[in-house]
Amino acid sequence: MDLRKTAGSIALLLVLQGAYAQQKLSGFNSEHAQQQLELEARFDKELSAAAIGNNIKTLSAKQHYLGTPRDKWVAEHILQQFKSYGWDAKVETYQVLFPTPKTRILEASYPANYKAVLKEPALKEDASTGQPDELPTYNAWSADGDVTGELVFVNYGLPEDYEYLERLGIDVKGKIVIAKYGRSWRGIKPKVAQEHGAIGTLIYSDPKDDGYYQGDVYPQGAFKSEYGVQRGAVMDMVIYPGDPLTPGVGATENAQRLERAAATNLLKIPVLPISYHDAAPLLEALEGPVAPESWRGALPFTYHVGPGKAKVHLKLEFDWKMVPAYNVIATMKGSQYPDQWVIRGNHHDAWVYGAADPVSGLSSLLEEAKAIGELAKRGYKPKRTLVYAAWDGEEPGLLGSTEWVETHAAELQQKAVAYINSDGNSRGFMGVGGSHALEPFVGEIARSISDPQTKVSIFERKQAADVVAASTTKAKKDILAKKDLTISALGSGSDYSSFLQHLGIPSLNVGFGGEGAGGEYHSIYDTYENYSRFKDPGFEYGVALSKLAGHAALRLADADVLPFDFRSLAKTITGYITDLISLADQMRESTAVENQIISSNAYQLAGDATKPLKVPAAKSEVPYIDFSKLQNALVAFDKVVQQLQDVKKGQLPAAKQDVLNKALYQAEQQLLHAGGLPNRDWYKHVIYAPGFYTGYGVKTMPGIREAIEQRKWKEAEEQLTIAANAVNRLTDYLEQTLAAVKPAPETADSK
Amino acid sequence: MDLRKTAGSIALLLVLQGAYAQQKLSGFNSEHAQQQLELEARFDKELSAAAIGNNIKTLSAKQHYLGTPRDKWVAEHILQQFKSYGWDAKVETYQVLFPTPKTRILEASYPANYKAVLKEPALKEDASTGQPDELPTYNAWSADGDVTGELVFVNYGLPEDYEYLERLGIDVKGKIVIAKYGRSWRGIKPKVAQEHGAIGTLIYSDPKDDGYYQGDVYPQGAFKSEYGVQRGAVMDMVIYPGDPLTPGVGATENAQRLERAAATNLLKIPVLPISYHDAAPLLEALEGPVAPESWRGALPFTYHVGPGKAKVHLKLEFDWKMVPAYNVIATMKGSQYPDQWVIRGNHHDAWVYGAADPVSGLSSLLEEAKAIGELAKRGYKPKRTLVYAAWDGEEPGLLGSTEWVETHAAELQQKAVAYINSDGNSRGFMGVGGSHALEPFVGEIARSISDPQTKVSIFERKQAADVVAASTTKAKKDILAKKDLTISALGSGSDYSSFLQHLGIPSLNVGFGGEGAGGEYHSIYDTYENYSRFKDPGFEYGVALSKLAGHAALRLADADVLPFDFRSLAKTITGYITDLISLADQMRESTAVENQIISSNAYQLAGDATKPLKVPAAKSEVPYIDFSKLQNALVAFDKVVQQLQDVKKGQLPAAKQDVLNKALYQAEQQLLHAGGLPNRDWYKHVIYAPGFYTGYGVKTMPGIREAIEQRKWKEAEEQLTIAANAVNRLTDYLEQTLAAVKPAPETADSK
Repeated sequence: MDLRKTAGSIALLLVLQGAYAQQKLSGFNSEHAQQQLELEARFDKELSAAAIGNNIKTLSAKQHYLGTPRDKWVAEHILQQFKSYGWDAKVETYQVLFPTPKTRILEASYPANYKAVLKEPALKEDASTGQPDELPTYNAWSADGDVTGELVFVNYGLPEDYEYLERLGIDVKGKIVIAKYGRSWRGIKPKVAQEHGAIGTLIYSDPKDDGYYQGDVYPQGAFKSEYGVQRGAVMDMVIYPGDPLTPGVGATENAQRLERAAATNLLKIPVLPISYHDAAPLLEALEGPVAPESWRGALPFTYHVGPGKAKVHLKLEFDWKMVPAYNVIATMKGSQYPDQWVIRGNHHDAWVYGAADPVSGLSSLLEEAKAIGELAKRGYKPKRTLVYAAWDGEEPGLLGSTEWVETHAAELQQKAVAYINSDGNSRGFMGVGGSHALEPFVGEIARSISDPQTKVSIFERKQAADVVAASTTKAKKDILAKKDLTISALGSGSDYSSFLQHLGIPSLNVGFGGEGAGGEYHSIYDTYENYSRFKDPGFEYGVALSKLAGHAALRLADADVLPFDFRSLAKTITGYITDLISLADQMRESTAVENQIISSNAYQLAGDATKPLKVPAAKSEVPYIDFSKLQNALVAFDKVVQQLQDVKKGQLPAAKQDVLNKALYQAEQQLLHAGGLPNRDWYKHVIYAPGFYTGYGVKTMPGIREAIEQRKWKEAEEQLTIAANAVNRLTDYLEQTLAAVKPAPETADSK
Repeated sequence: MDLRKTAGSIALLLVLQGAYAQQKLSGFNSEHAQQQLELEARFDKELSAAAIGNNIKTLSAKQHYLGTPRDKWVAEHILQQFKSYGWDAKVETYQVLFPTPKTRILEASYPANYKAVLKEPALKEDASTGQPDELPTYNAWSADGDVTGELVFVNYGLPEDYEYLERLGIDVKGKIVIAKYGRSWRGIKPKVAQEHGAIGTLIYSDPKDDGYYQGDVYPQGAFKSEYGVQRGAVMDMVIYPGDPLTPGVGATENAQRLERAAATNLLKIPVLPISYHDAAPLLEALEGPVAPESWRGALPFTYHVGPGKAKVHLKLEFDWKMVPAYNVIATMKGSQYPDQWVIRGNHHDAWVYGAADPVSGLSSLLEEAKAIGELAKRGYKPKRTLVYAAWDGEEPGLLGSTEWVETHAAELQQKAVAYINSDGNSRGFMGVGGSHALEPFVGEIARSISDPQTKVSIFERKQAADVVAASTTKAKKDILAKKDLTISALGSGSDYSSFLQHLGIPSLNVGFGGEGAGGEYHSIYDTYENYSRFKDPGFEYGVALSKLAGHAALRLADADVLPFDFRSLAKTITGYITDLISLADQMRESTAVENQIISSNAYQLAGDATKPLKVPAAKSEVPYIDFSKLQNALVAFDKVVQQLQDVKKGQLPAAKQDVLNKALYQAEQQLLHAGGLPNRDWYKHVIYAPGFYTGYGVKTMPGIREAIEQRKWKEAEEQLTIAANAVNRLTDYLEQTLAAVKPAPETADSK
């Protein structure tokens, strides 16, 4: 034996012990913590930025949207990669509806019979662009339609924009609306337009939002150029995501399917996304009132609301065909708890080349799988089963992941410890959203990973960015005083949705961003060339993502006691309740003041006769709402989570530890309400949901919050009861868990 | 006698009494109040919107800037008008320096030897435009210069913009800067540029600020078109206004004059205003960092800070000649107090045609003079002397009014009861700024004048506009709860400055606006055609201005007791002190937090390595400042103003009333500090001044406020003492006044 080598190893070990001693590793006893940190160090060594870059290059080289041969090729390539890394991998295929365009015509009688280009040109500076048969620019799930009408500009197409149109005396009934991309998920825009009687919707990218106003345009800079178009789904995903024909069940070969007309999340009007090159002549031809300041973009003319001379003809036809969606599922069986699954996923389908979205996140995931495979080859066995997934059909509406989750729902509710999602990634700051019982766990990891650029922890860099960006002294002080990481709540927009909101499986969505802004999203310009110049040139944030997601997966797989801390959930819910009370109070006060202003005639008196603007309608007064049942539920919940925390979990007998662990990861399911949210029963989580009128944007305590926002006071009370019951259920559940794992009471004799 | 007629008259009188009884008329006994209201009713009947329109048309028909033959013609025309109305009128002439352009060259080596147009084209839709020899676009008081250098975009050219440039690592030393019009008075921009070592300044009108972004451009709409340019003075008026060669003294024929080089308010670098047509190619050629979001305008490209390929050559030569400034002064002698003057003024010179600025306000003034003349012809005699003035040379730097005030300073401080100013006027909402002892007086008038469009009082309409425009529920509630009019404090930008800030004469600036927005300001497009389409089509707001200013002048001329209420001044100063304390507290807190952020390294950690941005320098901590002497001074002041209010002034013997009245109108002079403000001793008022770095924008308690803002802590303490002394002086003065007018104490015997 080589003594020098042994001495060296011991020295290294001591150094490592010193370093690790400063790290907290919840859920591991000290010996296991040591082993886990060493494991992570070895995992990190396997990660290669260059390999991630190569994967991005390979997987984004050709377009690979759902249903294309290349989509299948990508799935098979990923399958082979998993297998080559030593994982047990397979493809699970679903049959899903997926429309692609057959006819796209947009023309205007004024100015001078304008015919829209509807095409993103190839760039000589970007060799990836301009390949044959690039997917035309369109919105998937637009209805077929052939409509002609006057045009009205509706700002971002949000409900409040229509309230303002109403004040302007402009009705969109029978008209075509044109909305800017941004502020809400795109699918909200045609939905709200349709609710108001519009017969068609155009959505364009204003240069103010992601074009020259923001920065130099591609290829000189990263922002959207004149002809760039954002593709994307406009299915009403906040009703339910996934295959529209199979809500709630897996879209397997023989699944029972709805008629398309019966799918409640599909639009009845045609929708088309366009570039600002195509939008500008239509907008410039609008007449009517000058658009309010907050509506105006960066095009060099006065924005009018319309209508005007421009009559628009929009004709769209789609090929509504069934296509296979290929989910690639790789597993590494748990040595101790094979029926406890730690699931990690990222989608693999892209609208066109998709170097950033989704291939950057996918390549980090594959790099994790490779590294874990290497560890496994050298003897590592996770205690729990690791499931690594590459989803298909995310872009058209989370199809692959949703169908998989719906197919395996019962099993997942039994076995899924947590789901860790990622998607597009770039240079910048860590971003984590998800289940708040995992917040301290994520904080521990975030303190142990170095930011590639600054070498401080990604937690510290995020805090620095937050404190610098905060707009008030008070906000800055609050951030400076904050010691712990805060994670955000999840709405929708990526594959965690069905895990979290349909099944109550603890979920995280992780990534980096903030320094990779650009205008390539869902366009043909989301290429390797673009990504490697503007998003993450050295792919080091790809490595950082592999560490963040990989360490989380490994710790969850190996923990003695699963690191759920429900005190964070209690604190978070308490914060939401405070928010809701304050929301109701503010609405009550502002409604009263606004109604007083309306009845004082101030709107008429303040109005400019040359710019008619109707007085807003008085609104119903906001009653005092009884929050007490939810507040009392929280008091009880607070107690039990503290008791749970006080249990010396690491010292429990193994059998009780097993009981405890299973109870911990299944606990969040108590927060599901079987009846779901009002008008969208697929969404069952009482704490987190995408907003009915925001789409991707989360609404926390959604049943209560949306009832208040929509001034449905009775519904608010009902939803408060539902939420209180859910919290009480979780409290009871945790009390039972406590009772089950407590040491048997000592008998009097034993004293 | 015709009984029916008499009965009718009595009935009318009863109706009028009923109407008037509801109006408060401070300073008049009930009999006099009745007479005054009848006088005002007769005054109002003489006012004619059509006559105002005709005057606007006549006086703006040709360009009439200082020193032109037409300027003299306008003065003489006004003189004849005053005389024809029955006033005693004369022209007082001063000899002032006034530069006009000889050479204007702006060219850029990139893009492709761009040569700036520097010309506003005539419009076929506006017959006034395009007359021969229109004054070229320029900034008066630019230095002569011939400079070539790189170009840097400095946003609005404010001190904080240079702080940001410093963080970007961009130095303007030896370079030419290009700034946007707006946010500060234009003269501040080259001054700050010069302080930072720039060799020249371009100022352009971004379409975001007054062009197509705001609304349709002229002639389709009112906003600034591609070639529109704002002329204007860039004298450092916040040092002193008026003829630069005669600071503090009248620019009479034989006045002692400075050498031009010795004038401390003149620039050393050349400055040129340009259209966005001329600015766009220069801006588009800039390289360097992308401008921060708040810097970006509405031109259709990415705004960069520079420098870049563009080398700019700017050559300007001026004809620095002496010209006559013709002030037209009309008087109507007071029957009872001929040596008490109520002064009313508006300038008559314009940059080009000046239909809005100044002819609209001037025409209201002339209409008042006409109506008062009619009243006089039918026997009306004001108790106090009315002085109606039309000033020359306001545009180049308040020349006419300042030289007149400096010439007559001693007499004015004896005789001037108040100065009432107006300037350009348009449709919209009343706007009044001035001496706060007159605030309740203005409130009474504002409640008695009808808004032409809504028929409610102009006070009520203003309140309605304020409450609708307020951005928070709290602000809306505060306005709803407010019963009294608030007037603003005056900075600079029109002819009240020397009256108020140099001599301490109670002043008001009155007008209407808010519904006449456009981009014609100081361009050739400020024409009758433009005015009568977009500013005040029926000239009814011209009539409203005549009423507002005319009633104020008549009430001040005729009051038994002058309607000064120093409780409003006390309340206002108390508010300013509260502001200042809160300003210091906020600066202390934000400095501490900011310094903590700086020392925590957060700026480095948050920074994007591809967009270098220096860490801001830590700032000196903000000490606690002793406000007590000023607060105690206010306590004493509060007492005396209440005592003064409790005096039954109307019941004083005539001699004591005379003593009181003179004391009341001279009181504000106690707030002058003989030494003036730091570095600008022309400005002597301790409560109101234009901001050293805002120009037109007011700084209240300027000595203290600017010392705090500029972090000069010792100066802040000194200025606090100066302000406290001034308030104490006014307190003593009012106590002495009280003693002088109090009834003689009853002797013991008389009991």
